[in-house]
Amino acid sequence: MSSSHFNDHIDRTPANYQPLTPLQFLQRAAAIYPIHTAVIHGDTRISYAEFYARCRRLASVLASRSIGPGDTVSVMLANTPPMLDAHYGVPMTGAVLHSINTRLDPHVVAFQLDHANTKLLIVDREFSAIMKEALALAKVKPIIIDYDDKEFPQSGERHSSDDYEELIAQGDAEFAWRMPLDEWDAITLNYTSGTTGNPKGVIYHHRGAALMCYANTIETGMGLHPVYLWTLPMFHCNGWCFPWSLSVVAGIHVCLRWARAKAMYQAITDHGVTHLSGAPIVMSTLLNATDDERLPISHRVCVNHAAAPPPQSMLDAMTAAGFHLTHLYGLTETYGPATVNEWNSDWNKLDDTTCARKRSRQGVRYVALEDLSVMDPVTMTRVPADGETLGEVMFRGNIVMKGYLKNPIATQKAFAGGWFHSGDLGVLYPDGYIQLKDRSKDIIISGGENISSIEVEDVLYKHPAVAYCAVVAKPDEKWGETPCAFIELRPGAAATADELIAWCREGLAHYKCPRYIVFAEVPKTSTGKIQKFKLREMAKKA
Amino acid sequence: MSSSHFNDHIDRTPANYQPLTPLQFLQRAAAIYPIHTAVIHGDTRISYAEFYARCRRLASVLASRSIGPGDTVSVMLANTPPMLDAHYGVPMTGAVLHSINTRLDPHVVAFQLDHANTKLLIVDREFSAIMKEALALAKVKPIIIDYDDKEFPQSGERHSSDDYEELIAQGDAEFAWRMPLDEWDAITLNYTSGTTGNPKGVIYHHRGAALMCYANTIETGMGLHPVYLWTLPMFHCNGWCFPWSLSVVAGIHVCLRWARAKAMYQAITDHGVTHLSGAPIVMSTLLNATDDERLPISHRVCVNHAAAPPPQSMLDAMTAAGFHLTHLYGLTETYGPATVNEWNSDWNKLDDTTCARKRSRQGVRYVALEDLSVMDPVTMTRVPADGETLGEVMFRGNIVMKGYLKNPIATQKAFAGGWFHSGDLGVLYPDGYIQLKDRSKDIIISGGENISSIEVEDVLYKHPAVAYCAVVAKPDEKWGETPCAFIELRPGAAATADELIAWCREGLAHYKCPRYIVFAEVPKTSTGKIQKFKLREMAKKA
Repeated sequence: MSSSHFNDHIDRTPANYQPLTPLQFLQRAAAIYPIHTAVIHGDTRISYAEFYARCRRLASVLASRSIGPGDTVSVMLANTPPMLDAHYGVPMTGAVLHSINTRLDPHVVAFQLDHANTKLLIVDREFSAIMKEALALAKVKPIIIDYDDKEFPQSGERHSSDDYEELIAQGDAEFAWRMPLDEWDAITLNYTSGTTGNPKGVIYHHRGAALMCYANTIETGMGLHPVYLWTLPMFHCNGWCFPWSLSVVAGIHVCLRWARAKAMYQAITDHGVTHLSGAPIVMSTLLNATDDERLPISHRVCVNHAAAPPPQSMLDAMTAAGFHLTHLYGLTETYGPATVNEWNSDWNKLDDTTCARKRSRQGVRYVALEDLSVMDPVTMTRVPADGETLGEVMFRGNIVMKGYLKNPIATQKAFAGGWFHSGDLGVLYPDGYIQLKDRSKDIIISGGENISSIEVEDVLYKHPAVAYCAVVAKPDEKWGETPCAFIELRPGAAATADELIAWCREGLAHYKCPRYIVFAEVPKTSTGKIQKFKLREMAKKA
Repeated sequence: MSSSHFNDHIDRTPANYQPLTPLQFLQRAAAIYPIHTAVIHGDTRISYAEFYARCRRLASVLASRSIGPGDTVSVMLANTPPMLDAHYGVPMTGAVLHSINTRLDPHVVAFQLDHANTKLLIVDREFSAIMKEALALAKVKPIIIDYDDKEFPQSGERHSSDDYEELIAQGDAEFAWRMPLDEWDAITLNYTSGTTGNPKGVIYHHRGAALMCYANTIETGMGLHPVYLWTLPMFHCNGWCFPWSLSVVAGIHVCLRWARAKAMYQAITDHGVTHLSGAPIVMSTLLNATDDERLPISHRVCVNHAAAPPPQSMLDAMTAAGFHLTHLYGLTETYGPATVNEWNSDWNKLDDTTCARKRSRQGVRYVALEDLSVMDPVTMTRVPADGETLGEVMFRGNIVMKGYLKNPIATQKAFAGGWFHSGDLGVLYPDGYIQLKDRSKDIIISGGENISSIEVEDVLYKHPAVAYCAVVAKPDEKWGETPCAFIELRPGAAATADELIAWCREGLAHYKCPRYIVFAEVPKTSTGKIQKFKLREMAKKA
């Protein structure tokens, strides 16, 4: 029999083929759990029926302003209800959601607005000053809608007479929203944080977003009705796709305008939060809370952490504080998390040090990612699975971005050889788990030897006086480069440069130890990533 | 901005597009949990690494016999390890798996072998006699491999000198298996049980099977490492896709050659079974176990039941016995379950009768199904959501079959108007939940009034003497049709026809009550479905 018998006269029809999209998960949740709470924001409670209606109202408002397929709707919003609405309401019109990092400077915002060709913009009054500057710099002249948060009133100047809540109140709750024509159609646009050069516009499609919903639900162990605290900014990789994922299991979104310790503990205890996500900064905020900010937690709280390899001491402290950790890793280009440190129950029998080493690995591919490897980027062959040979972490599968907007060269380069090149360096262990060692540009090459800055930082973090640290290369006449450490001390703690260098020598080969120590605030991006390119400039002068 | 900016120079590449397939879930589970048990069969334990190796060995053996893309490999196997292997090993070569119902008569088996154009056949010795007859009737002459179950030795005559376990032991555990070229490619072939006419060959594709894996995992509340007892025959809709689904969460398959009460209780207690599935026959087997077959169960066992609307009394008894029920519904054409009675926690407050009514509904669409409705098949409009207006249950989405093999007319008819027509009659409630009322051909029309046979059966099942019952139409000169009930009494119980008719009159409008009662064994298909077409023949003579 030729394969054709299984294809003859058998076409895709609306009966047996529909584009994958996360939009349908909300429609379903609203139909099944209409009175169940979908969103908590201050004293506001929004049910699933209301949440779905708000999204349709937003879509109808956008459509009435001629927003449609392929248009860009930009938003500069905190983790508030309109941000959740936008994740559904914008793609319901066929348009593409572009969430702007709220901590960017006006020049970068203006670049993004022009590059994305923003047609309509929704702005929270908290960010109106910066947006005013950005709009003055930008060439595009989008329609503007202000969001006035009644729960947490902001005093920023309004851009227009259009108020978000007033507009959607007049919108059509029964609006006939648009399924994507193709699951490969764009759903959102996220700019890389751009540690160097112009940010790149990463395009997500409906297919990838829908598959992430399944994968997030399964990988983070969400049963029905999880309670999810928004500690991770939704402008960051669309909140790792959790704004959509929660609709699969009719979870509760607990909004959070500012990820501050007191508000986090309050929300966790008041609403019985079961899950939260974030960069290590979220964990350190929880851990460094003062006694009057901290509240006792008696239920299980799962913390999905990613974005930067966390220091071992932080993982230990979080576990000791009773949080259940899931270690994820990914990039903007992989819709957020694309690997998970899947925990083998037999590892619980291992000694603490070995267990800790297992916990610090980035792990294995997400269930919706088809392949993950550490490869030599020149030969495109996998490195030996010896836990030592450095290579570039590469991804392949349906939760890798569609491509970069208007940047075919960068897209082609990123996908060279049929794999997405992450730019992160790592090793592959015999059991197939990967561990990050560094960004390729963050590696320090001293006397021809590669030094992983993360390895040095891990040792420094174990010192009781160190609150934050970052190690970068400093140009050196003799060695080419030499490690230079930037240190933030804990409040009230003290340590000298000599003490810290001696500390490193206890735990590291001498050539890996920093020869320069700088006590200074460590510059971080809005998503908590340390900005090593700035430190490298500072190191030159150290 | 035109929509093209989000598509310009952005192509699918192996880096960001891979065909969806359940095969990758096993590869992943084997890589992450190599030493974790995948399969239990008698005293045999197969780890995930071994399971994956067995599948690749099987694929290599098939490839060495020239099996490749588009070929059909048929199997007649019980719920044993080779059946699990076949779900992966056959599609790993690009071939299509055809699982034969082990209780069919030789003529139907021969029809299927010819229609599917079977190229290779794997047969358990338990079924060798029937297969011998079927092969004598069939035109195709497939390569045959016998399976000799060392755990439960069978005495049936061998067809060939090729023994399954010997062959795969010589196979290649590192075989480079083949990803589907297209996720729309066929993965399996399942023949409808064919209550009338020739069975139709339902084609599943990789895309639908992969999406079912996510949906099954989420809908049946499987966390990591569930223990799944194989009470549902894997030849039935590929075991509702659970042979693949368990790989998502590295679950344990507990094989079961015969779904008998004692073995079921033994497996549940010995292996800590967390989930099992089946038609109502599985529940009645558990409930009707004798004292020496039954064992006390102290842990939570989730029972996914479907295939026929179960009588209310059975649901109550199962809940009383401590089983956690999930009510699913679907057809061969929907990969098994495509609806789920999603339980709203606020219903727990309802009184028993209302709660029971909620429990007996088939529910809402599965999370991977895009749309579900009850429609007038002529106008193709939705019936009013009043819980009363009868219509045909229709499905639309990615877990609807690819089509019927070599049957374009049936395929076209099934998909008319862009919906899959189930042939089942139901109603739509105001909250969007559906309830089955009957197969369209099972409805009884008496004096112009529609009578749901299920409604009558539900009343009869409440009678303490009734073990099994089925109500069908009997031709009637005056009324056109009139209900005729077939009754199997419980062992030791007694009831007269008059008593049962009087019983019905207590709970039903008189015109709905059976005017004829026949005490006889109720004929069932191999999957536990009552064969009403046979009963209608019998009713004519009653």
